[in-house]
This record gives sequence, C-alpha cells and structure tokens, in this order.
Amino acid sequence: MIIVMGLPGAGKSTVMKGVSADVKMLNYGTLMFEIAKEKFGISNRDKIRKLPVGQQKEVQAAVAEKLSSESGKVVLDTHCSIKTSKGYFPGLPFELLSKLDVEALVLITAKPEEVFARRQNDPTRDRKDDVKLEDVQEHDDMNRALLAAYAAHRGCPAKIIYNAQGKMEEASAQLQAILE
Amino acid sequence: MIIVMGLPGAGKSTVMKGVSADVKMLNYGTLMFEIAKEKFGISNRDKIRKLPVGQQKEVQAAVAEKLSSESGKVVLDTHCSIKTSKGYFPGLPFELLSKLDVEALVLITAKPEEVFARRQNDPTRDRKDDVKLEDVQEHDDMNRALLAAYAAHRGCPAKIIYNAQGKMEEASAQLQAILE
Amino acid sequence: MIIVMGLPGAGKSTVMKGVSADVKMLNYGTLMFEIAKEKFGISNRDKIRKLPVGQQKEVQAAVAEKLSSESGKVVLDTHCSIKTSKGYFPGLPFELLSKLDVEALVLITAKPEEVFARRQNDPTRDRKDDVKLEDVQEHDDMNRALLAAYAAHRGCPAKIIYNAQGKMEEASAQLQAILE
Repeated sequence: MIIVMGLPGAGKSTVMKGVSADVKMLNYGTLMFEIAKEKFGISNRDKIRKLPVGQQKEVQAAVAEKLSSESGKVVLDTHCSIKTSKGYFPGLPFELLSKLDVEALVLITAKPEEVFARRQNDPTRDRKDDVKLEDVQEHDDMNRALLAAYAAHRGCPAKIIYNAQGKMEEASAQLQAILE
Repeated sequence: MIIVMGLPGAGKSTVMKGVSADVKMLNYGTLMFEIAKEKFGISNRDKIRKLPVGQQKEVQAAVAEKLSSESGKVVLDTHCSIKTSKGYFPGLPFELLSKLDVEALVLITAKPEEVFARRQNDPTRDRKDDVKLEDVQEHDDMNRALLAAYAAHRGCPAKIIYNAQGKMEEASAQLQAILE
Repeated sequence: MIIVMGLPGAGKSTVMKGVSADVKMLNYGTLMFEIAKEKFGISNRDKIRKLPVGQQKEVQAAVAEKLSSESGKVVLDTHCSIKTSKGYFPGLPFELLSKLDVEALVLITAKPEEVFARRQNDPTRDRKDDVKLEDVQEHDDMNRALLAAYAAHRGCPAKIIYNAQGKMEEASAQLQAILE
C-alpha cells in the first residue's frame, strides 16, 4: 500500500487524477464513514469525530482490517494532519500505522504562498480570511515533521512532491513513478 | 490529561497564569524531584539527571503512576526538550508517553527574535551572551519536530500557541479553549 | 553506543577524523554489506537494497546483534536518511533503533548554501546539476525531523553539530565532547 497525503489547497486530488497507473484508489475518510454509518448509524462524516473514543478506535481498526484484506497495489488517500481549533490531529497515528502494510509515504504540497493564493481564489470556500500565510506555513511544517515520524515508525521511504503552479503534469509524473 | 510545553523565554508560565479553567496544574520536574528525594535522597533537581539510568527510569515510572491516578482534568507542565551540551533531551520519550492518558499536547512558543530579546533583557539570567538567535531558532524547530513525533505516537492533537509580544491574553484564551 | 549521522556534503567523515577519543568507529553500511555478502553472496553494497525485504530485515537484525555484543564505547556511523527517487529512507527505523543501546544521537550538518557549494566543487561527483539548493534544504529539514523522531523513540539526547566553512576543528571538538 502507498499512502498519499496532502496539504489542503496543494492540489492532491488533481495530481492524483493525472496518474494513469493501474492501482486501486481508496479514501480513508470515506472508508471510515461507511463503517461508522453501518456500525453506529451516523449520518455524516463530521460525526465520526464526535463518537466516543472507544467507538472511533473500533471503526479505525475495522478500516485497517479492510485495507489489509485488499490484494494488488492500493493507494490510500488520507490527511497527513487535520487542523482543528484543538490543534493538528495526526492522520496516521502509530496505532493505525502499525496495522497497515505500507510500501511508501507521499506528501503532496506546494509553496505556502501558492497554497495561500489558491485558497483565497477558491469560490467554494466561505471564509477567505480565516487563515493567514503563516498558518499555511505552520501546517506545512507540521505535516513534514509528521511525515518523518511516520517514516521512522514504518521504516519506509517518504517522498515530498511539490505541485508547483502550472506544473501539475510534473507532480503527477513523480507520483506515477512511485506507484509503478 | 493535557500536556503543556514551552520554549524557554516564550512565557509559558505567564500564559498559564492567565488561564482560569478549573483544572489541576502539575509540574513534571517538581513531581520527579519529590519522588527522587523520597526514594534516593537527592537534595536538588539538578541531581535527578545524575542518578543511574535505572533509578531515573524508576522515578519516571513512579511519576507516570501518580499522574494516572489523578481524577478530573489535569494539566501537566513540562519541557518539550531540554537543551544540554550533549544535545536536546526529549521531555516526553515514548516510554513515558505510552504510560500517560493524553488528550492534547500544547506547545507555547514565540518568534525566535522575541524570545531572544526577552532572554537578553531578563535580569535573572547570568550569561546573556551564551545563546545566539540561530540557537533559539534551532531549539524551536527541534521542539516542533518533537511535538509532531509525540502526537503521532499518541494519536492526539498538537496545538502550537504563539505568545506574541503584548498579546498574552490572546495566548491564554487559546490555552483556555483547549482546557475547557 | 553513540550514533553519528550526516547530511551528504556536510563533511561528516572529516569531522570524525578530527576526533581523538578512544572509541571504536563502526560503519553501518559496511557491517550490512559484510553480513549480506556472507549470508546471501551479494557482490556490492548497492545490492543490499535489492534483496527481498525479509532478507534485508535478517541482515539488519544480524547487524543489530553484532552491535549489541560490542563492549566499550562504540561510535556507529550511518545515514539519517538516504535520498532516493522513491523518497527519503530513514536510516534508523524504530524496528532497528529499538534493538540498539543508544546513549546519544548526533547529526552533522552545515548551511544548505555551503553544502550545495561543496557538492558543486567536488571533482568526484559526476552529475553536478542534479540537485538544487532547495533540495539540499529539504533533505536537511527531513533529517532534523527524523532526528527528533529517533530521539523521542529512544529517550536519548539529539545533538546538531554545524560543520561551518573553515571551522572544522570546532565541529570535531563538539563531537569529541560528546564521545568523552
């Protein structure tokens, strides 16, 4: 399994769409939601985080089991960290990571200035002024440090791919080289 | 338990004093000293580090046990890392961290330039020229990377609070929001 | 055991040569190769990475066992991370690190601008233009984050030594102070 993470606004989804490798793409959030809905009847993704910690861990373990049962090359699309008012939640806590058979970790990012500008210009975002440039920088720094911790834990390689403005094909090509 | 750490000179103690939440504040160094004094008769804090490693671990385990027995919301005040001539000692090695029930990690920091200036102006410091601005930057970078590793290990959120010059109330308010 | 790592081009080997402490210096890559040659008949170092993962882990475990049997002070010379097209491979994955009795971790580095210039001027390097200044910066950042994760895992100090241009004696003296 290859795990692909990204900084919000860095263009992870578009970079992933540019990849033509014969791989199965799975989204961690979607898997969590499907299992949480089935087990605990929640109605939307935001409610996963409101489940008691024990139930969240049960869902997490079920997702890990489902992922382990996949054959062939699988790409898992998830967050490196989720920014909340309580701080950054790590997307791959060691307890989860130790249940997965990880071949490589990939972080898709971009220059904070570019991410900041993209977020400002995104018509789907309501509040354009809720994040400052230095907040984007802090999130990117935290993601890189988390990436290193995940890699040290698993002993697998960690790749940083820059999705530079106007060079998405290059970013997709780098990702494809890892998936092949 | 919520663990609050800080860069020396960032003003952790003053930010913590500005919090009015109904929490029990405990200092890790004080707990270590009390137990080390009782068990091994040491006379001051600096001697903890000179105990044989086995005895240090015994003290650390006793502190972890004491902390686990606390009921209600507890704030543990400790170092993210301690800077020594041998390097940065992590304040929360995984062996300790895995014994604690951590809800959130908080790092109180400030711009290296501000921390540097505060240290220069601190009349209680003897040697004002022993640290350069780039040393403060290095310590802050190391603390952030350690914070990420601790968060990945525990699967809990990690919050960075800036205690900007003249804005201590804002920093205290952010801390209070996490403690509530 | 003290583990010394370095950014390629930062001058780790020369800094280590300037140390006169009475220690046994061992190179992790050499130990890996010797054991892999004996067990699996490989003919050069580059082939270690091409062994099946199970055999690589067998070699790694044998090296860890050999290192544990050493008496007296030992310095282990290894990589903090190895940069490949698949990403950064951590030099001290937790699985290996947990088998070693580590007293201190040392990372020898230098300003990215200086490392970049040294690489450009190195007549033994074939491709001088394959790395940009920002790649050196990224590798250095990743190494520091990995260093923090290793230190958090072991609970041992992590020291960063700068080998500044024209000040190698100072860097060697800092390393010697840790080895004594």
